[in-house]
Amino acid sequence: MNAEIIAVGTELLLGQIVNTNAQYISQRLPEVGVNVYYHNVVGDNPERLKKCLGIAMERSDVIILTGGLGPTKDDLTKETVAGILEKKLVLHDESYETIKAFFKKYNRRMTENNIKQAYLPEGCIIVKNKNGTAPGCIVECGAKTIIMLPGPPSEMRPMFEETVLPYFMERSDCLLTSKYVRIFGIGESQVENMILHIVEKQKNPTIAPYAKQGEVMSRVTARCKKGESPESLIDPVIEEIKDRLGDAVYSINNMGLEEVVADLLVSNNLTIAIAESCTGGLVSKKLTDIPGISRVFEGSVISYSNNLKNEILGVSNEILGKYGAVSNETAIEMAKGVRKLANTNIGLSITGIAGPDGGTPEKPIGLVYIAISYGDVVDSEELKLWGERSRIRNVASLHALDLVRRYIIDL
Amino acid sequence: MNAEIIAVGTELLLGQIVNTNAQYISQRLPEVGVNVYYHNVVGDNPERLKKCLGIAMERSDVIILTGGLGPTKDDLTKETVAGILEKKLVLHDESYETIKAFFKKYNRRMTENNIKQAYLPEGCIIVKNKNGTAPGCIVECGAKTIIMLPGPPSEMRPMFEETVLPYFMERSDCLLTSKYVRIFGIGESQVENMILHIVEKQKNPTIAPYAKQGEVMSRVTARCKKGESPESLIDPVIEEIKDRLGDAVYSINNMGLEEVVADLLVSNNLTIAIAESCTGGLVSKKLTDIPGISRVFEGSVISYSNNLKNEILGVSNEILGKYGAVSNETAIEMAKGVRKLANTNIGLSITGIAGPDGGTPEKPIGLVYIAISYGDVVDSEELKLWGERSRIRNVASLHALDLVRRYIIDL
Repeated sequence: MNAEIIAVGTELLLGQIVNTNAQYISQRLPEVGVNVYYHNVVGDNPERLKKCLGIAMERSDVIILTGGLGPTKDDLTKETVAGILEKKLVLHDESYETIKAFFKKYNRRMTENNIKQAYLPEGCIIVKNKNGTAPGCIVECGAKTIIMLPGPPSEMRPMFEETVLPYFMERSDCLLTSKYVRIFGIGESQVENMILHIVEKQKNPTIAPYAKQGEVMSRVTARCKKGESPESLIDPVIEEIKDRLGDAVYSINNMGLEEVVADLLVSNNLTIAIAESCTGGLVSKKLTDIPGISRVFEGSVISYSNNLKNEILGVSNEILGKYGAVSNETAIEMAKGVRKLANTNIGLSITGIAGPDGGTPEKPIGLVYIAISYGDVVDSEELKLWGERSRIRNVASLHALDLVRRYIIDL
Repeated sequence: MNAEIIAVGTELLLGQIVNTNAQYISQRLPEVGVNVYYHNVVGDNPERLKKCLGIAMERSDVIILTGGLGPTKDDLTKETVAGILEKKLVLHDESYETIKAFFKKYNRRMTENNIKQAYLPEGCIIVKNKNGTAPGCIVECGAKTIIMLPGPPSEMRPMFEETVLPYFMERSDCLLTSKYVRIFGIGESQVENMILHIVEKQKNPTIAPYAKQGEVMSRVTARCKKGESPESLIDPVIEEIKDRLGDAVYSINNMGLEEVVADLLVSNNLTIAIAESCTGGLVSKKLTDIPGISRVFEGSVISYSNNLKNEILGVSNEILGKYGAVSNETAIEMAKGVRKLANTNIGLSITGIAGPDGGTPEKPIGLVYIAISYGDVVDSEELKLWGERSRIRNVASLHALDLVRRYIIDL
């Protein structure tokens, strides 16, 4: 079955909000064998909505509309859909009582226009709304299924989960399952070349690589009949990709690099401290996004000035003078220094030029050094990154995290 | 002129990413007199893209496509559009040289499939891409304008700003101008109540308040003919809002709180150092997002462990023992300590419980203390925040930045 999503709301067309409802529904529908082929957004305009619906009825089996179920005159989704399907809107007593009770519970005055929310297309399946006043509905019309849900995600999501998913689950015999192979350190086109022979021989699962800032992701998606195991199709293909790409594959369960590193640190009981310069706290921020990191993360020194590099981290003024703050030598001393200061197993450091100013012909914007210190070993890397300040800082922080990851898996 | 946006990418239909490009473009196009009537998302499927384009060509003057300009076989936007418009794709020498230079500069190997990115529809206007390898283009075809831009927002946005907006600016006679009043420290419904009398009497400009995480924004939008001054309409209204809301208004030019604080520090020549605990580097990260901050930002200590709070920042073990790491007293000592350590004008500190673990009945999740030290003065605040870890960390960091802002403007 093929579906499309129509979000109704002028606020989306003005860019006041982003269409996260379409994202959520798109993530969930394939689980029950329904493929999303189109998203649409249209304003609170019945004529344009009507045309959109007409197009959708021709090309899709399932049409999910979000938004436009509110009490105001702007809210016209039900009226427009009912018009197209030539169905009457009839008062649904139970919904009317629920709306009345909702207002009573929260001590709010129910206005006349709220009654409109209890009118639903004749013969529909009601989708109850526990978190707001607008019920949704499922309308079956010949081979087509039209579903209307309210716009606020806090109302729409539970309704989708509790009523819409089970509705399709009952009717579906083909389910879609995806796993994500996440790759760091190889570019998108190189990944594609390296796994081309695997991609080309596959029909089920299918493989699709795509780029995220600084990294590459490859989606492996299997189509199964109810009761079949998607893992038996997906896992061998993931193994083949891993064989080909080696330890550039950092996760096969869609975990981010910071989660993988946090997991490795905690499970190996390795403490860490970080010395950051150009990233200004971003590496530490990413790592402390992960709950429970306090077991292994002692802290960081953001040594933006040479003064702090020297006084707190103990980078000698000789090294700073001879090689500069952005140098392999300084990165190494920073990693050693912060490790000593915080008395941790691992010291990680990062220093570079994020731009937009501060670049020179010898040390251009995007030049970054990262270093790791552990036991008697120090390891460092020179990076030449491109793009804006925010991209350079982000990609540099990913490289620093990846350095820790590769150190731990090689232990 | 009416526009629609077509985002091309199966990753959108699978819900792996959300369509922020459509939001960005929708926010910007009205500035140059172009109204967005539809958003569409379609997968990497030439047949379905072709049908979408056909529908768009019938109902819209301007069609903006994002995505599908990459080097891989999946990327078919240019090929499909050129097919519909019956235009050839021809090698654009300058773009080819730029792509080659791009790979050379960053020491990456250029693969055969990257050449495809330099092929563009004959007769198009090239939209240069300074942050990636895929150039965009503007194709004029009768009364229709078709624009193709790459999918990654870090590439698409500067291209839109530098080439697409000026393209329409030249051709438009009715411009929409918005200014944004940004407010911190008052909730959305309170803001709405406080400025209701201003909102209700306005037709041009219009005023629309909306909530962002931890703060409130109010958009003031004027509609003008070319040559008229939108400021003469907008500025008096903004003055009225400022009169009503006082110093809760932190910016009237859409600058973020971190930009405002960075500006205040630099223009007042005040140096700062930060001691962070629960935010784990987020305050420092936000501040160092701003170019040129190195003139005033010396550095930070992220003292996640008590050990570092004591040894580096000099918070006494007595205070840590008696009041705990999350306390007003510890926050004050941290602010004083980091200021002394880095020898700055201002010391800022933040300590709290971000969750999801670590809360107690006395010190629940969301309890945060922030403090500022300057001269002989120390000022501190207790915050009781709600929500998930990421929300608590973000809102806490905004409060810390706002503490600095209010200190400087009161000087």
